[in-house]
Amino acid sequence: METRPDAGRERRKGAPEVIFGETKETEQILAMARGLLAGTGRAIISRMPARSLEAVRSAFEHYEMRYQEASHMMVIYTPEYNKRVTGGKVGVISAGTSDIPVAEEAAMITEEMGCRVTRIYDVGVAGLHRLIEPLRALLAEDVDAILVVAGMDGALPSVIAGLAPVPVIGVPTSVGYGMGGKGVAALLSMLQTCAPGLTVVNIDNGVGAGITAGMIANRVAHARGQRSQ
Amino acid sequence: METRPDAGRERRKGAPEVIFGETKETEQILAMARGLLAGTGRAIISRMPARSLEAVRSAFEHYEMRYQEASHMMVIYTPEYNKRVTGGKVGVISAGTSDIPVAEEAAMITEEMGCRVTRIYDVGVAGLHRLIEPLRALLAEDVDAILVVAGMDGALPSVIAGLAPVPVIGVPTSVGYGMGGKGVAALLSMLQTCAPGLTVVNIDNGVGAGITAGMIANRVAHARGQRSQ
Amino acid sequence: METRPDAGRERRKGAPEVIFGETKETEQILAMARGLLAGTGRAIISRMPARSLEAVRSAFEHYEMRYQEASHMMVIYTPEYNKRVTGGKVGVISAGTSDIPVAEEAAMITEEMGCRVTRIYDVGVAGLHRLIEPLRALLAEDVDAILVVAGMDGALPSVIAGLAPVPVIGVPTSVGYGMGGKGVAALLSMLQTCAPGLTVVNIDNGVGAGITAGMIANRVAHARGQRSQ
Amino acid sequence: METRPDAGRERRKGAPEVIFGETKETEQILAMARGLLAGTGRAIISRMPARSLEAVRSAFEHYEMRYQEASHMMVIYTPEYNKRVTGGKVGVISAGTSDIPVAEEAAMITEEMGCRVTRIYDVGVAGLHRLIEPLRALLAEDVDAILVVAGMDGALPSVIAGLAPVPVIGVPTSVGYGMGGKGVAALLSMLQTCAPGLTVVNIDNGVGAGITAGMIANRVAHARGQRSQ
Amino acid sequence: METRPDAGRERRKGAPEVIFGETKETEQILAMARGLLAGTGRAIISRMPARSLEAVRSAFEHYEMRYQEASHMMVIYTPEYNKRVTGGKVGVISAGTSDIPVAEEAAMITEEMGCRVTRIYDVGVAGLHRLIEPLRALLAEDVDAILVVAGMDGALPSVIAGLAPVPVIGVPTSVGYGMGGKGVAALLSMLQTCAPGLTVVNIDNGVGAGITAGMIANRVAHARGQRSQ
Amino acid sequence: METRPDAGRERRKGAPEVIFGETKETEQILAMARGLLAGTGRAIISRMPARSLEAVRSAFEHYEMRYQEASHMMVIYTPEYNKRVTGGKVGVISAGTSDIPVAEEAAMITEEMGCRVTRIYDVGVAGLHRLIEPLRALLAEDVDAILVVAGMDGALPSVIAGLAPVPVIGVPTSVGYGMGGKGVAALLSMLQTCAPGLTVVNIDNGVGAGITAGMIANRVAHARGQRSQ
Amino acid sequence: METRPDAGRERRKGAPEVIFGETKETEQILAMARGLLAGTGRAIISRMPARSLEAVRSAFEHYEMRYQEASHMMVIYTPEYNKRVTGGKVGVISAGTSDIPVAEEAAMITEEMGCRVTRIYDVGVAGLHRLIEPLRALLAEDVDAILVVAGMDGALPSVIAGLAPVPVIGVPTSVGYGMGGKGVAALLSMLQTCAPGLTVVNIDNGVGAGITAGMIANRVAHARGQRSQ
Amino acid sequence: METRPDAGRERRKGAPEVIFGETKETEQILAMARGLLAGTGRAIISRMPARSLEAVRSAFEHYEMRYQEASHMMVIYTPEYNKRVTGGKVGVISAGTSDIPVAEEAAMITEEMGCRVTRIYDVGVAGLHRLIEPLRALLAEDVDAILVVAGMDGALPSVIAGLAPVPVIGVPTSVGYGMGGKGVAALLSMLQTCAPGLTVVNIDNGVGAGITAGMIANRVAHARGQRSQ
Ligand SMILES: Nc1ncnc2c1ncn2[C@@H]1O[C@H](COP(=O)(O)O)[C@@H](O)[C@H]1O
Ligand SMILES: Nc1ncnc2c1ncn2[C@@H]1O[C@H](COP(=O)(O)O)[C@@H](O)[C@H]1O
Ligand SMILES: Nc1ncnc2c1ncn2[C@@H]1O[C@H](COP(=O)(O)O)[C@@H](O)[C@H]1O
Ligand SMILES: Nc1ncnc2c1ncn2[C@@H]1O[C@H](COP(=O)(O)O)[C@@H](O)[C@H]1O
Ligand SMILES: [Mg+2]
Ligand SMILES: [Mg+2]
Ligand SMILES: [Mg+2]
Ligand SMILES: [Mg+2]
Ligand SMILES: [Mg+2]
Ligand SMILES: [Mg+2]
Ligand SMILES: [Mg+2]
Ligand SMILES: [Mg+2]
Repeated sequence: METRPDAGRERRKGAPEVIFGETKETEQILAMARGLLAGTGRAIISRMPARSLEAVRSAFEHYEMRYQEASHMMVIYTPEYNKRVTGGKVGVISAGTSDIPVAEEAAMITEEMGCRVTRIYDVGVAGLHRLIEPLRALLAEDVDAILVVAGMDGALPSVIAGLAPVPVIGVPTSVGYGMGGKGVAALLSMLQTCAPGLTVVNIDNGVGAGITAGMIANRVAHARGQRSQ
Repeated sequence: METRPDAGRERRKGAPEVIFGETKETEQILAMARGLLAGTGRAIISRMPARSLEAVRSAFEHYEMRYQEASHMMVIYTPEYNKRVTGGKVGVISAGTSDIPVAEEAAMITEEMGCRVTRIYDVGVAGLHRLIEPLRALLAEDVDAILVVAGMDGALPSVIAGLAPVPVIGVPTSVGYGMGGKGVAALLSMLQTCAPGLTVVNIDNGVGAGITAGMIANRVAHARGQRSQ
Repeated sequence: METRPDAGRERRKGAPEVIFGETKETEQILAMARGLLAGTGRAIISRMPARSLEAVRSAFEHYEMRYQEASHMMVIYTPEYNKRVTGGKVGVISAGTSDIPVAEEAAMITEEMGCRVTRIYDVGVAGLHRLIEPLRALLAEDVDAILVVAGMDGALPSVIAGLAPVPVIGVPTSVGYGMGGKGVAALLSMLQTCAPGLTVVNIDNGVGAGITAGMIANRVAHARGQRSQ
Repeated sequence: METRPDAGRERRKGAPEVIFGETKETEQILAMARGLLAGTGRAIISRMPARSLEAVRSAFEHYEMRYQEASHMMVIYTPEYNKRVTGGKVGVISAGTSDIPVAEEAAMITEEMGCRVTRIYDVGVAGLHRLIEPLRALLAEDVDAILVVAGMDGALPSVIAGLAPVPVIGVPTSVGYGMGGKGVAALLSMLQTCAPGLTVVNIDNGVGAGITAGMIANRVAHARGQRSQ
Repeated sequence: METRPDAGRERRKGAPEVIFGETKETEQILAMARGLLAGTGRAIISRMPARSLEAVRSAFEHYEMRYQEASHMMVIYTPEYNKRVTGGKVGVISAGTSDIPVAEEAAMITEEMGCRVTRIYDVGVAGLHRLIEPLRALLAEDVDAILVVAGMDGALPSVIAGLAPVPVIGVPTSVGYGMGGKGVAALLSMLQTCAPGLTVVNIDNGVGAGITAGMIANRVAHARGQRSQ
Repeated sequence: METRPDAGRERRKGAPEVIFGETKETEQILAMARGLLAGTGRAIISRMPARSLEAVRSAFEHYEMRYQEASHMMVIYTPEYNKRVTGGKVGVISAGTSDIPVAEEAAMITEEMGCRVTRIYDVGVAGLHRLIEPLRALLAEDVDAILVVAGMDGALPSVIAGLAPVPVIGVPTSVGYGMGGKGVAALLSMLQTCAPGLTVVNIDNGVGAGITAGMIANRVAHARGQRSQ
Repeated sequence: METRPDAGRERRKGAPEVIFGETKETEQILAMARGLLAGTGRAIISRMPARSLEAVRSAFEHYEMRYQEASHMMVIYTPEYNKRVTGGKVGVISAGTSDIPVAEEAAMITEEMGCRVTRIYDVGVAGLHRLIEPLRALLAEDVDAILVVAGMDGALPSVIAGLAPVPVIGVPTSVGYGMGGKGVAALLSMLQTCAPGLTVVNIDNGVGAGITAGMIANRVAHARGQRSQ
Repeated sequence: METRPDAGRERRKGAPEVIFGETKETEQILAMARGLLAGTGRAIISRMPARSLEAVRSAFEHYEMRYQEASHMMVIYTPEYNKRVTGGKVGVISAGTSDIPVAEEAAMITEEMGCRVTRIYDVGVAGLHRLIEPLRALLAEDVDAILVVAGMDGALPSVIAGLAPVPVIGVPTSVGYGMGGKGVAALLSMLQTCAPGLTVVNIDNGVGAGITAGMIANRVAHARGQRSQ
C-alpha cells in the first residue's frame, strides 16, 4: 500500500511533515520514516503504537533519537541534520496531570521547529492561586504565543486569554467522562470563550497546535532578525 | 382546561410553588394565581408573557406586587401575607450582562424564601481581576451558598467553586451562539468541572437554582436558631 | 511527569482532595498518595485501576486502610490521622443494583467528611411501593441532604425531590443501553425535573455529589453547634 | 398539487386516516376533507392551522362538527355517519397542564375509534400523592390500555408502567427548555424505562398513540364480544 | 451488595421479572435466580455473560432449563412450575440475519408469558418480494400483535404497520455502522413512521417489546375466554 | 458586495449554475441573474424569497419565464436560448404530499439539463399498494436514474432501491417533527440503507439530486448517440 | 439460525449480493458463500473477520480466490464462473493512506461488476499540487463516474466535484479523532458540499459506493454498445 | 441593569473591547458606547440590532463613524482619537457570497487594530481555478496571517492551509441547511483538517478571529520595528 509522506512540506509551509503512527502498520511507519530521513534529514512520528516501538527503535539505532514516553512521540535525526534555533518563544500550560501527554506532543513539535518552550503543568482552575506566579514569569519571558492544554471543563484557556497579551491557542484533551466527556465540553467551552484572542484546535491535537504556535513564533523571531545557529 | 397549582408545596417542601407563565394563557395564569393567593397568600409567576402582563397587573391592582423587568417575574401578596425573614444568606454572581435576567430570577425566588441575597454582576473570566475583591467581601458575609450564573464558556462557576468553601450551584444561561451555543457549552463545562462542590441545574433554570439555594440556606439558618421576624 | 495533589484543599474548601486513579500510572498514584498522607494524614483514591491495587496495598500495608470493592475506592490513614465526626447526616438512595458502585463512592466521600450516611438501595420506580417505607424512615432521621443515584430512566430523583423537604442531589449513572444509554437519559431527565430543589452532577460523579452533600450537611451541623469527637 | 388521502385505511387497518393540517394550505385541507367525507363519512383534521380554521368551519357548516381548542383537532361528520361504540376502554393521563393538548389529541382519536376514554390530568411526579387515588379508580374500570402524556423529565410513564397491569404507551411532549428540552429528555427517559410493558411514540404524536391504544382496546373489546350500537 | 429481584412483578403486572445478566457478577445472577425460583418457580436471565454461563448451568443442573444461544437468554424452571398457555398469539418478524438474536429474546419472553409465537426471519426491505407471502400467512393466523425487529435503515416496521390491522411494535437493533449506526437510524425512522399503529421500544430491547406484546395478546386471549392448561 | 456566479459551470461540469435565492437580497439576485443570462442565456433561481418575487418578475418581464410555486424555483430564458433535449430519462418519486416542493425542485433542474422527467407523487410506505403499478410503468420507460424524495421515516428510497435496476438517489426532506424530525431520521435511514445502489444528498437538496440525476442520464443518453434538437 | 443470501439480486438489480462478514459466525459465512456459489458461481465476502479467514480459505481451496488484505474482502469463483467485462470505467481516488482499505473495497466491487478501475491514492487537500496531474489523466480516460474516498476533513470530494464533469460519489471514512472524528466531519462536509454533482454513501461504505459507480458505468457502457467478452 | 465594558482591555490585551449588540437594549448599547468613548476614544459595536441603529447614529452624530452594512458593525471615534497604523498585514478570504458579512466583521476589527487587510471574496472550492491567482498575489504581499471564512462544506481553509506558509485561522459561518447546516459541518471539517497550521474560532465569530489575526500581525510588525504613525 503506497504512502507519500510530504517531504516538501517544511520548505513549502515552514512546518514539518509528521507521521501519524496510530493507524499505521510497522512497515508503513518504517517506509515513511526512511522517506523523510532521506528527504529532510529528520523523521517525526506521533502516537507511535506500542507494537511498533521496538522495531522502529532498532531499525534506526545508529541514528540520534528523541522519544517522549507520555506522548509516544519519536524524532529521528540523520547525523548531518542541522537543528534550527529560531529564537521563537512559546509557553505551554497544562491544566491537569492527565493533559501532559498532549502538552508534550505540542511542545516537542514546537521545539522541532526551532523554538524555545517554557512549560507550566497542572495549574487548573480548581486552584487558581497556583497559576498566578508561573504565568507572571512566563509573560516576563515575552513568549510569542501560549498553548493552553485542558480537558474536563476546559476553563483554563479562557482564563489565560483574559490575562495574557499574546495569541493563545486552546488544546482540548480527551480527559473527562460522562456528558461532555472525552474533551467535548472542553472544546465547546473554548469555542464559546468570552475572552479575546483565543483560537482552538481539535481534541488531543497537540501536533496541530504546536505547528501553529511554531509558525507564529518563528515569524515573529524572523522579524526580530534572529537566525538559526 | 383544569390546572392544579400545588398550594401545599411550601408546607411539604419548604419551597413555594411557582407558576411557569411562558406556556400559559392569561386565563390560566389568573386562575392559578388566584388559587395560590387563596391558599398561601402569595402567588409567584415566572416568565410572565408580555401579552399577559397588563391583564395580570390590573386583575390584582389592589394587592402588593413586585415585578422584575429583566426576568419578567412577578410576585403578588395578599394584605395579610406575612413575609418571612429566615436569616439564610445567599450570594448570586453573574458572569456577564446578559446573564442578569436569570440571576435575578434566582435571586428573587431566594428572597421570597426569606433569605438575604448579595449580588455581584458582570465579573466573568475575560477579566478575572474584577472578581477578586467582591468575592472576598461575599465570603466575609459568610453566605450559606453561592449561585453562579454564566453563559458562553461557563467557566466562572468552576473558578469560584475552586475558591469558595460553601456549596456552589452553577446556572448555565442560554447566552452564546454557534457550536455549544444557547448554554450547551456552559452546562457541559459545569458538569465537567474539575472543582469540588459544584452542582448544576438546567440552562436558564433560575427558579430551580434559587429554590435549592434557599433550602440550603434556610436549613443552616434554622440550625443557627434564627427565626422569622 | 510531575503532579501536584492539592493538599491545601481541605483547609481551603472543607472538602478533601481525591486522587482520580482511572487514568493514572501506579507510580503516579503512589507518589500522589504519599504526598497527601504527608500533607493531611489521609489519602483517598477513587477508581483504583485493577492493575495498581496490589502495589498500592503493599506500599501502604502498615497503614490503616478502607477499600470498597464495588466502587474501587480506597482510603489510607496515617496512624495519627484524626477522624472527624461532624454530626452531618446524609441519605444515599440508589434506584437499581447496578447503581450501587456510584452510590458507594458518594457515600464513602461523605463519610470521610465526617457525616453519618444512611443507605437505601434498589428502590427504583419500576416498583415504587418498595420506596415509601424506607424514605419515611430516612426523613424521620432529619437528614440534611439526600443523594439519589439512578441510571436508565433517571426518574427516581424527581420522585424523591417531589416528596422530601431537603436539598436533593441527583447522580445519574452510566447504566442503560441504546438511545439515551450510558446515563444520558438519566442526566437529561434530572435536568428537566419538574420537582423543586433538585440539582445534579455529571454521570457517575459520585465523588462530586458526595462532596456537595458533605459540605451542606457539615455547614448545617456546624450551625447546630455540634463538634467532632 | 395532487394529494391522495387514504380513504381505505380504516377498512384495511382498523384506524382512520387523519389529515395532518400543520403543513397544508387551506385548499389542500378542504380537498382532502371532502375526499374523506365522501369516502368514509368522516374527516379528522389534526393541528388545524389558525389561518384555515374559519374557512374549514364555514365550508362544512351544515355538517356536525367537533372541535377541540387545546389540540386544534377537528372532526367533521356527514349526517349519515354511524358512530361506532366498540366497548374498548382507554385511560389518558397527563403529567402537567401543558401536556393537555397532546393528551386531548390522543383522547379524541381513541374516541373516534369507538372507545370510551377516562382522563386524569396534571398529576406529575412533582407531587405523586395526587396520582394514587385517580389511578386506583382508573384500574378499577379495567381499561385496556393507558396513555401517559408527559414532557420535561418524562418520569410519569415509568412510574405508571411499574404499577398498572395493562399496556402503557408513553407520549413525550415538547414541553421543557434547556438541555433535553422540547421533549427530548422525556422521550429518552421513556425509552430507558426500567418498568416493563411501556412502549413509546415520538414527541407530541398524540395521533399515533391514540391509534395504537384504540387498536389494542378494540381488539380486546371485539374478543369480549361487544358490538357497536 | 444486596439486590431485590421483584418476585411479585408477575402477579402485579402480568409480566415476569427478568434478570439482566450483562452487568452482573456470577454471584449476583445466582442469588437473584435462586430468589426468583423460590418465589415464582421460574428464573429468566437475559444477556447471560459468557463468563457466567457454565456456573449458572451447573448450579441448576437438576432443573429444567431452556437456553437460546443467539440471544444468550436462559430460563430455569423448578419441577413444580406450571407453564401457562394463554391462547395469546404473537408474530415476530426480523429484517436481517443479524437482528435474529434480539428477535429471539423477544420471542422467548412472549412464549414465557404463555403466548404462541410465529417467526418470520430475514425478510428486509432490500427484497420486499420475500415478505409478502409469509406476512399473508401470519395475518391469516389472526395474531394479536406483531413485533418487527430491524437494524440499519429500520424501514421494515413502517412497511408492516402500513399493511397489518393489528398493533405493531418496532424493535430497533444495534446493527449498522457509520452515521445513524448502532440502531440510531432504525429507532429514529420508526419514531418518524408515517404508518399508523406503530409504537417502539429502545434499541435491542427485545425483553421490553416481548413483554408488551405478551400483555396485549394475553389481554385479548383472556377476553376470548381462553384459559391456561 | 461583489458576487461571482459561475457562468462557466455548465461548460465545465455539464450542469448549470443555480442561484440560491434564500439568503440573498433582491439586488444580489438581480445582479447574478443578469450575469448568467448574459453568459449562458438562462438564469435558474431556487428558493426565490417571497420578498423578491415581484421585483425579479418585472425586471425580466420581456423574457420567457418558468415559475414553479411549490418549490419557488424560477427559470428565465433569453429569446435566443436554445433548450436542449438530450434524451436522458429520469423518474422522480415522492413519498408524501409535503415532499412535493423538493421533488419539483429536483425535477425542474433535471428538465433544464435536457432530460425527460416522469413524476410519481404521494406513494409512501404507509400504503405500499399505491406504489407497485406506477413503479412498474416507470421501469418500463427504462429511466436512467430515479430520485426518491421522502421525509419522516425516509423508508421509501430503500424500498425502491431494493426493486429497481438503476441508480437511485435518495432526497430526504425536512418533513417531520419530534426526535429525528426535520429530515434527520429520513437522511440517516437512507444512509443506513440495506438496499444496494442508493446514494444520497442532504436534506431538501433537490437541486443537488437533480443535477446528479441529470449528469447520469445525459451521459447514458450521449452514449446512446442521441443529440440535442 | 437461517439466513437467506439474495442469489437473485444480480439478475434483479444488476449488482451482486455481498456477504457482510463482520458480524457473522464462520458457519454462517460458509453457508452463505456456498449458497451464492451454487446460485451465481461467485461469492463476495466483505470485512472477513480474522477469526474466519483460514476456515473460509481452506473450505474453498480448490476454487479460484481473490483476497484483498487492506479491506479484508474476498471473492471466490467456481471454475465455470464467467467474468464479465462491461466496458464501464470508474476512477477511485483516496485522500490519505488510511482511506485505502475503503477505497479498495469499493474498487473491488466495481471490478466484480465488470468495470475497469483506475486508482489515485493519497492526494489529499493538505497538498493539492499532488492531485492535479493524476486527475487530468483520469479525466482523459473518460471515466463514467469517480469515487472519492476521504476521512478527516472530507474536503477532497468537494474539490473534485468542482472540477470533474462526471458524477462523483463521496465515500467518507472513519479516519479522524476528536470532535467530528470517525468520519462524521467528512460525511457532513460532503453533504454540505457547495459543488454540484456529488452524492454520498455512509461512512466506510465502500461496497455501497462501488455498486452505484458500477451501475452507472455499466449503464453507460451498455448504451455504448459494448458487451461482456 | 449595570454593565461594565472593559475599557482597560486594549492596554492589557492589545485588543479592543467590542460591544456585542445583538442581545442588548438600545439603552445598554448607548451607555456602554459612552463608557468606551470616554475611556478609550473609540467604541466598536458588533451586530448592531436594526431597532437600535438610528438611535445610536443620532446620539453620536457629531462623531466620526464607520458603519459596515453587511456585518452591522459600527465604529465611533472621538475627535481626538489617534488611529494606529501598525504595519501588520492580514489576508481575509471568503468562500462564498453569504460569508462576506462575517469576513467583513473580522476585517474591520483587524483594521481597527491598525493592520492593513487584503480581501479576496467568493473563491470557494466549487471552482478552485478562481482562487489560484489572487492567493499568489496575497502571499506576495507577505501577509502575517490569513483568515479563511467559509460555511457549508468548510473545505476552503484546509485547502489554503495546505498551500500558505503563514498561520491560517478558519472562521466557519452559519451558512448551509440540512444536516451539518448552520456552520456545523464547516466547523467540524476545519477541526478535522489534515493540513498543518490551521486553528479555528466558533461559527460566525468574526470578531474573535479578527482579534487573533491582529494580535499575530501586530506582534510581527512590532518585531519588524515598525511604529504607528
Ligand atoms: N498526532 C497528530 N495529530 C494531528 N495531526 C497529525 C498528527 N500526527 C501527524 N499529523 C498530521 O496528519 C497528516 C496526515 O498524516 P498521515 O496519515 O501520516 O499522512 C500529517 O501530514 C501530519 O501533518
Ligand atoms: N422558570 C421556571 N423554570 C423552571 N421551573 C419552573 C419555572 N417556573 C415554574 N417552575 C416549576 O415548574 C413546575 C411546573 O409548572 P406548571 O406548568 O405551572 O405546573 C412548577 O411547579 C414550578 O415548580
Ligand atoms: N398529528 C399527527 N401526528 C402524527 N401523524 C399524523 C398526524 N396527523 C396525521 N398523521 C398521519 O400522517 C400521515 C401523513 O399525512 P399527510 O401528509 O396528510 O399525507 C397521515 O396518513 C396520518 O396517518
Ligand atoms: N461492507 C459492506 N458495507 C455495506 N453493505 C454491505 C457490506 N457488505 C455487504 N453489504 C450489504 O449488506 C446486505 C446485508 O447483508 P447480510 O447481513 O449478509 O444479509 C447485503 O445484501 C449486502 O448488499
Ligand atoms: Mg491536578
Ligand atoms: Mg461584560
Ligand atoms: Mg432492581
Ligand atoms: Mg402542574
Ligand atoms: Mg440478509
Ligand atoms: Mg399522504
Ligand atoms: Mg498522507
Ligand atoms: Mg459563489
